[in-house]
Order: sequence, then structure tokens, then C-alpha cells
Amino acid sequence: MFGLPLKESVMLKPLRSGHARELFELIESSRHTLRPWMPWTQQMQGVAEAEEFIANAARLYADNDAITAGLWEYDRLAGVIGFHEINWSSRSAQIGYWLGASFEGRGLISLAARAFIDYAFVELDLNRIEIRCATSNRRSRAVPERLGFLLEGMLRQAEKLEDGYADHAVYGMLAEEWSAKRPLF
Amino acid sequence: MFGLPLKESVMLKPLRSGHARELFELIESSRHTLRPWMPWTQQMQGVAEAEEFIANAARLYADNDAITAGLWEYDRLAGVIGFHEINWSSRSAQIGYWLGASFEGRGLISLAARAFIDYAFVELDLNRIEIRCATSNRRSRAVPERLGFLLEGMLRQAEKLEDGYADHAVYGMLAEEWSAKRPLF
Amino acid sequence: MFGLPLKESVMLKPLRSGHARELFELIESSRHTLRPWMPWTQQMQGVAEAEEFIANAARLYADNDAITAGLWEYDRLAGVIGFHEINWSSRSAQIGYWLGASFEGRGLISLAARAFIDYAFVELDLNRIEIRCATSNRRSRAVPERLGFLLEGMLRQAEKLEDGYADHAVYGMLAEEWSAKRPLF
Amino acid sequence: MFGLPLKESVMLKPLRSGHARELFELIESSRHTLRPWMPWTQQMQGVAEAEEFIANAARLYADNDAITAGLWEYDRLAGVIGFHEINWSSRSAQIGYWLGASFEGRGLISLAARAFIDYAFVELDLNRIEIRCATSNRRSRAVPERLGFLLEGMLRQAEKLEDGYADHAVYGMLAEEWSAKRPLF
Amino acid sequence: MFGLPLKESVMLKPLRSGHARELFELIESSRHTLRPWMPWTQQMQGVAEAEEFIANAARLYADNDAITAGLWEYDRLAGVIGFHEINWSSRSAQIGYWLGASFEGRGLISLAARAFIDYAFVELDLNRIEIRCATSNRRSRAVPERLGFLLEGMLRQAEKLEDGYADHAVYGMLAEEWSAKRPLF
Amino acid sequence: MFGLPLKESVMLKPLRSGHARELFELIESSRHTLRPWMPWTQQMQGVAEAEEFIANAARLYADNDAITAGLWEYDRLAGVIGFHEINWSSRSAQIGYWLGASFEGRGLISLAARAFIDYAFVELDLNRIEIRCATSNRRSRAVPERLGFLLEGMLRQAEKLEDGYADHAVYGMLAEEWSAKRPLF
Repeated sequence: MFGLPLKESVMLKPLRSGHARELFELIESSRHTLRPWMPWTQQMQGVAEAEEFIANAARLYADNDAITAGLWEYDRLAGVIGFHEINWSSRSAQIGYWLGASFEGRGLISLAARAFIDYAFVELDLNRIEIRCATSNRRSRAVPERLGFLLEGMLRQAEKLEDGYADHAVYGMLAEEWSAKRPLF
Repeated sequence: MFGLPLKESVMLKPLRSGHARELFELIESSRHTLRPWMPWTQQMQGVAEAEEFIANAARLYADNDAITAGLWEYDRLAGVIGFHEINWSSRSAQIGYWLGASFEGRGLISLAARAFIDYAFVELDLNRIEIRCATSNRRSRAVPERLGFLLEGMLRQAEKLEDGYADHAVYGMLAEEWSAKRPLF
Repeated sequence: MFGLPLKESVMLKPLRSGHARELFELIESSRHTLRPWMPWTQQMQGVAEAEEFIANAARLYADNDAITAGLWEYDRLAGVIGFHEINWSSRSAQIGYWLGASFEGRGLISLAARAFIDYAFVELDLNRIEIRCATSNRRSRAVPERLGFLLEGMLRQAEKLEDGYADHAVYGMLAEEWSAKRPLF
Repeated sequence: MFGLPLKESVMLKPLRSGHARELFELIESSRHTLRPWMPWTQQMQGVAEAEEFIANAARLYADNDAITAGLWEYDRLAGVIGFHEINWSSRSAQIGYWLGASFEGRGLISLAARAFIDYAFVELDLNRIEIRCATSNRRSRAVPERLGFLLEGMLRQAEKLEDGYADHAVYGMLAEEWSAKRPLF
Repeated sequence: MFGLPLKESVMLKPLRSGHARELFELIESSRHTLRPWMPWTQQMQGVAEAEEFIANAARLYADNDAITAGLWEYDRLAGVIGFHEINWSSRSAQIGYWLGASFEGRGLISLAARAFIDYAFVELDLNRIEIRCATSNRRSRAVPERLGFLLEGMLRQAEKLEDGYADHAVYGMLAEEWSAKRPLF
Repeated sequence: MFGLPLKESVMLKPLRSGHARELFELIESSRHTLRPWMPWTQQMQGVAEAEEFIANAARLYADNDAITAGLWEYDRLAGVIGFHEINWSSRSAQIGYWLGASFEGRGLISLAARAFIDYAFVELDLNRIEIRCATSNRRSRAVPERLGFLLEGMLRQAEKLEDGYADHAVYGMLAEEWSAKRPLF
């Protein structure tokens, strides 16, 4: 029902239980690109797990701990993006995101992340946004780099993926620098 | 972050905890018009109760039992509208709504209710929408009547208000008749 | 342990977990008469579901949201009757009921409903009792009609049954009129 | 609504939230006799605590862990009696009870306990009933002794009362011996 | 991480989820000795049940209702011992325990129980410790007898085992007598 | 009951509810040193809050999400240390710690942290330990530096303290390097 148009053909909308099949099918069709970086998608083996994912996201939103949205292009679900690890006392949050295989390469995530960051600094009054990527995931790292984030650390073996431990690149953006760095696209 | 524009100056947005103060102030400034029909607003005596109301609405949404939205006019919260008593097995829901005193008389609720009904029949695949009003609440009854609902019953002493029991007018709209009756405004 | 004798051979008793088998067998032997009007009985495929039904009824009672009783004739469970949708702020409740196939036609439900209504108005201090029946369920509608309820509305397509949507006849009884209308049998 | 008549003027009924005031007033008027043996009654300082007690008893019943009843004499609440520590795998339970000060001395508890024991052995298929009393509480010990229970142990300093630790007399009754020992009164 | 050395080769440690396999294997290898006295071990048919047992013990500890420890001999889990039925208002607790078949006969349980009792009277400020054994379980009864407990009662048919009901011997120890009776080993 | 001796006079023990007063008094006597770095200690205004802290730590332990211990020197509680943000799928955890004002300067935290890290790599089979300190908190940063951790990042404005935002120094230690770097003291 609700949405945030990003450009003519692209929209962010909250996920609801009616989207479970579409979400599952997006994951199913993208296992080859998702699996190396997001091992948890292997647990998603049916629509029921997708429903549980959506219900859980709604509960985290109700508890003010996370904000998750679906990213739609021309009425097709293209990916998921959101804030997690929201820390209200320190006014910071992480952004996480992923895109279906056939939607890559058109800048959709950068567009959506920019909208989330605008919202974080303007509406939620947050002070710091963090993005973490496996150091070898070049596609994912391109997002914070294009958005002007600063690389603040390289955490060794911070995440266990299928092929072993991956280092994390940690990027940060502060409220005070966003207006200067925010890309217009 | 998300919204549904209804016309240039009017928007539906999900309530979030950051709106609690605004919600409380809207109720506070409208007690003279809300109190006779919505006795529960008397329990709302501070921002904490408004926060609890919003958190509860988010929980009901997470459990797929209700959908609640704030109605904004030029960045000012004007009222609240939503589905409750959603019955998924019978595919029906009730719509409830209220408006702050200074926002009355401009058709905002009819506009918002029409959007909710569109959404119910098109996206949620519901079959029946019900609206219940105290029979003597003329302003509230004007909404289903303007939207083409059929009066299906008059339930005696169905609700206890401050001045005693009120009868309920029950209005219904079916999916099969909405396209013909839906007003264009 | 506890009971309410209605006449020599008939008694209302709270359901407890020890009754699960008897409840399941009553449903099992009455599927042909229950199925058209109560689609949820199709989910009851074993004693475990009957136990869950009874535990849930006990929880609703503990939360003051419903009161459910078994109806016994000569030590055989004949049916189930109770208040649901108890609205304490408006002091109203609905009565729901069903009877095993071999117990129909002897006025057992009317007898039990009369006892529930006495209890509602005298002990619980309720103000309004509502009974809803599918319009084509003549046996069920005979109960409120025999008890002197007023038909207050006909809600279109209010419930989804196996063969499609059914309209609901809504009957109401007020505390102030019960003593005059209450049948003696 | 439900009840179990014990003799003409005496009845067992499940407690419900509407009884909270009556329960509180019974405790209030009996503090001098209850306090030495039931220190927890000191926490009952208002109707809210009595409501919480009743809601908790209903929850324990819903979970099949306890069965609590009020004991009424001529429409006045006289005391509370029930099973707690129900152990379904070993098919045993304890009986606990107390009476308001002005209702003592007329055998009400023995009458009610006999009904509970009948119920335990006949309906619930339990095998053992236990009653524990402070050794110096002569009034309380008279109940199992009148009902034919066997004294099976004296547990030293088993309970902390206001004036220090009390020893417990433990009495037991088995299903196989009840029919022979059951008093007729 | 934490432990309580009892003698050179023997230690008490809290169970954690990583011990589930070891716990399951200990039960599996001791079914012939455990089964007659502890029917619940029959429900333990895999590592998942052992994990659930450990998680439940942790929850009871978090709620201050029980304290459970594993007993290790030279890095091998030998048995489980702990307080249950802790009654803080009466400052009493029961001790329960069991040992794997191959660890019997070396006094491990008496050693561990002595440490628990020391802890109960010195650190937890309890006043009474109770041990209950099936009267025919001679190995189990040897523990309280060796530790100087007093036999306070014989409860008939207090527990249902595989071969029928067993009587319980109830043993008690008071804080005031422990220092005189405590064995040095 | 359980403990881990670190050297003759120093021990780690799980916190239990009986320690609440001691914990509160330690915080109370150290507010001048704790307040600048741990704003949450300001919420600890009585023994009840300390009890809630301990109960919460026990719940996190039961859920396998954190491990918290008190640090004792000669029977006096000196501080608190533990794992939080345990990530079992990536096998990493953070260590957090604080010391009462009068216990500083004697290397107690380094001693305790070394024991926690030993435990993490040997018993819990973790792969990475992280320590985060405000960059200007020299005392706190000395701990990972003394233990051989690598500084992996400087996260800007990562935490809100009383005087404004503080940057975080992030230190990491991997399982594969611990045996070489582990200090003997």
C-alpha cells in the first residue's frame, strides 16, 4: 500500500506476508550469486521460510530494532534493503542489502541506499551509518564507495562464508558530512 | 519513509515511534470532538500512551491482524485510519478512522478510505469491507454513504459511550460491486 | 467437577483436557452436519487438535475473553456452547454453539443458550447478547428466534464456507428485554 | 455459572474475575486467623492482588497444573480449596485449602475436600492425594485425619511462617483405599 | 569455563550447550541402570533432547528456580546433580542426582552432594535440604544416609516408575546440624 | 558455587541474584570513573536494577547469546567481564569489561580477559575475539594492546557518551595467532 518512489520505475515498499512467494522465487533464481556472500539464504528452502523472514522483519520493526523494505522495479521484486543493528542510544545503524541476479548492474542499490540514508539523517535523527562488506565482494563495496563513505577499518575473519572466513571492510558516514558527499546520480 | 500520496497535499504513512508526540498532541487538541465517540482516547494522557498505541499497531501488523496508517496533510498529522478485525479465512475486514478536530470537513477520510478499499480488493484480495458507526454520529456515517456502502443492519446498544449505549449502523461493501460504486471525487 | 444441570438428563460442564477424545469423536461422527457450516472442523483430524482446542478455550477463559462449556446428555458429550467476542467495555458478547448430529432436534441448544443468557445478564452484568447465523442455516437460526431475539441485520457475504460466501443474520437481545422475552420451555 | 452443590447451602464454584472483591474482603476480615499459617496473604493488600490471584489460578488450570475453586455458603464466599502440584506422570496431587474466620467449625472444608478427592480418583484417574499441614495447626490437620488419610512423615522446618520455621505433617491417601475410608458425614 | 574442583580428578561445572552430545552419550550408555528409576530418560532419544534439557536448566537457573551442574571425572562427564524445587520463602531445596553406569561405586555423588550442601547453607543461606529416593533404590538412598540426613517420612506410591508405583523415602538435613554431621570423607 | 581461580587471590564467578547488593555498591562507589565511559551505569540507581542486570545476564546465557562473570579479589567483587555479541555462525564474540575504581592498576582485567580468550578458543571453538574501546579511554585500550590484539579500525563517532560522540578503536585476535601472542604475565 505504501511506497517510496525512487525514480519512475523503481520503488521501495514494506514487505508484507502476501509477498512471500515473490521473495522466495527471487532468492531461488539468484542462488548462484547470493550463496557465496549470504550463507543464510541456503536455509530458505520454501515459501514458509520466506513468510517467517517477513514476519520476523515486521516484529523487528514493531520493536524499533530494524527497518526492512523490498525494492521493486516495474512491479517485480528486485531485492531487499534495510537498517539493522539500530542503536538508538548512540544513534547509529547499519545498512544491509542484496539484489536478485538479474537486477544487478543498474545502480538500484545505490539509489535505494541513498534514500535510506536521507531518511536516517533527516527523519530518524541518526548520527552515523555503517556499511560492512566482505573485502572481496567488489560489487557490494562499490555501494558505500559510490555514496562517499569513508573506509574506517578492515576486520579480519569477521564472517564465516561457505569457502571460509572473510575479512570485513567497514565503511562509515556521519550526519555532518552527508550533505556534502551525497551523490545526485 | 514510505507513503501513499492521495492528492498533492495529503499522504498516508505508517506510524512509527517517532510520531508519538505528534499523535498525542493531535488527540489532545481534539478531545472535545473525539471524546463522545471514542471513549478510549481518555486513556491517552501522555506521549507514553501514544508510543504504546503505535507499538501495538506495529505488533498487530507483524501478526497480520491489522493495518494502521497516519493521515498527513502538508506534513501535519491529521488523523488515523486502518483495517482491524481482518478475517483472512472469510476475507473480510473493518475500516476504522478518526480525524483531528481542525481537519474535519474537507473529505480527507473519504479519500483515505477509498485508497484503503482499493488496496483491500486489489492487493489483499479481500471480499468484504465493513464500516460500523454509532447511528447518531452523522459525520462518521457520511463516509460509507459517500463511498457507496450498503446499510446492512442496525445493532441495538452495541457500544458503550460516555453518555450511555449507542446503536451501531453496519455498512458493507463487496469486492464485486466496488468498481461500479467507487467514487472518483 | 463443576456443572450446571439444565434438566434431569442434561448438564453444562467446563471442558478439560481429559475430554479431548470424547470431543474428537463427537466431531468425527458429525462431519456431515458440521462441515457445511463450520469449515474449521476440517482441521480437527485427531485427538491432539481437540486437546489444543480445549487448552486454547482454557486460555481464553483465563484471559477473560471467552467462556466455553461442553453440553452433556446422560454422560455423553452432545455439543459445545459458549461466549466469544466478549467486549467488557461495551458489555456485550456473542454466543456460538454446535451439536453432534445424533443430538439434534430435542431443543438442547436452546436450553443451554437460555442458561448462558441468564448468566450473562445476572452474573456478568452484560447488556447485549448477539447471535450470528448463516442465513440459510435454518436449524441454527431457530435458536435465537425461539429465544425471542430481534433480527437486527443481514450482513452480505460475511463468512466463507465450503460452497462459497454466506450471508449472516445478526440477532440481538438486550438485558432490559430478557425478563419479558425469556422462554420457560 | 458452573457449580458443584455439596449440600443444600454449600457449593463449589470456579473463581472468576468478578469475584475479586469478595475474595479480597474475605481475606481482609480473616487476617488474624490466616496470617499465622499463610504468610502470603500479607501480600494481598487490595482487590488488584485478588484479581491477579484469580487470573493466575485460571492460567494454572489452562496449563493443567492446578484446579482451584471457591467454596460458597448461601451465596457468600467462605474459602478456597484446590489441587496444586498436580503430577500427571505420577498421577498425584496435593490439596490445599483455607476458610474465612467466620466460617470455621462447621466441617465445610472436609465436605469440599471429600468432593475434590472423589473427583481426583473417579474423573481424573489420579492415584495419590497428599495433604500437608504445619504440625501445630490442629484445625488444618483435623481435615486429613477425619477423611482417613495416613500420616506418612514429619518433615522438619519445612516451611517458614511468621514466627519461625514450622514442621510439616504429610498425609497420604491412595485410590485403592479411598472407597473403604471415604467418610459419609 | 567455571568449575568447582572436588578432588584432584573430579569437578563440578555448569552444563552448557556444547555438552549436549556428551550428555546424550552418557545417558545412552547407561539406559539399563537409569531406566528403572528415571523414566524420563526414555524421552531422551537424541542430541536435540539433550540440548533442550540443558537450555531448560539454564532457564531455571536464570529464574532462580534451580541450579544444575555436570559432574566430571578426568574430563569425562560422569553424571548430573543439582537443586530443584528451591523454595526461597521457606529457604529449602531438594537435591537430585544421577550417575552414568560406569561411574558408580566410587562415592562421586556423595562428594558432589556434600559440596552442594556446603554451598546451600553457607552461600545461599538455605535452612533445609531434602533428598527423596524410591525406597527400593538402595544405591540412591546410600547418599543421604552417608551424609547424615534424617529419614523423615515414607510416602506411599509417590512416583510412577516403569514397573508400577514406588514409595518415596524422604530425608532431611537442617542448616543447624550440618556442621556436626558433615562427613570429611 | 563455581569459579575459575586466576591467581591466588583472584577468581571469576558467575553472578547470581544474591550478588545484587554487592554489584550495586561497587557501581555506586565508582561512579566518577565509570560514568564517562559507560553512560548506562547512570540507570543503575538501586539494588533492584542490579538484580535486573543479573537476571538479564542469566537469560542471555540461557539463550547462548552472552557469558558474563564477576571478578572477585579476596571475596570482594572487583568488576564484571564477559562475552557479548556472540555470533555462533561466524564463531566470533566481543569482550566487554569494567572494574571498580579502587581495583584499577593491578592488571586484573588483563588476567581475566586472558582466561576468557583461552576459554573462547579452546572450549567454545570460536575463531575471532573483538574488543572495542573509546579511542580516548587509554586504560581500556591498554588491555587489548597488552594481550597482543591487532588494531583493525577506527570507527568515527561510534558511541554516544555524556560529553558527545566517541570514536571506537576496534581490536581483533584470531584463534590461529593466540598461542603465539598470549602473554604469560
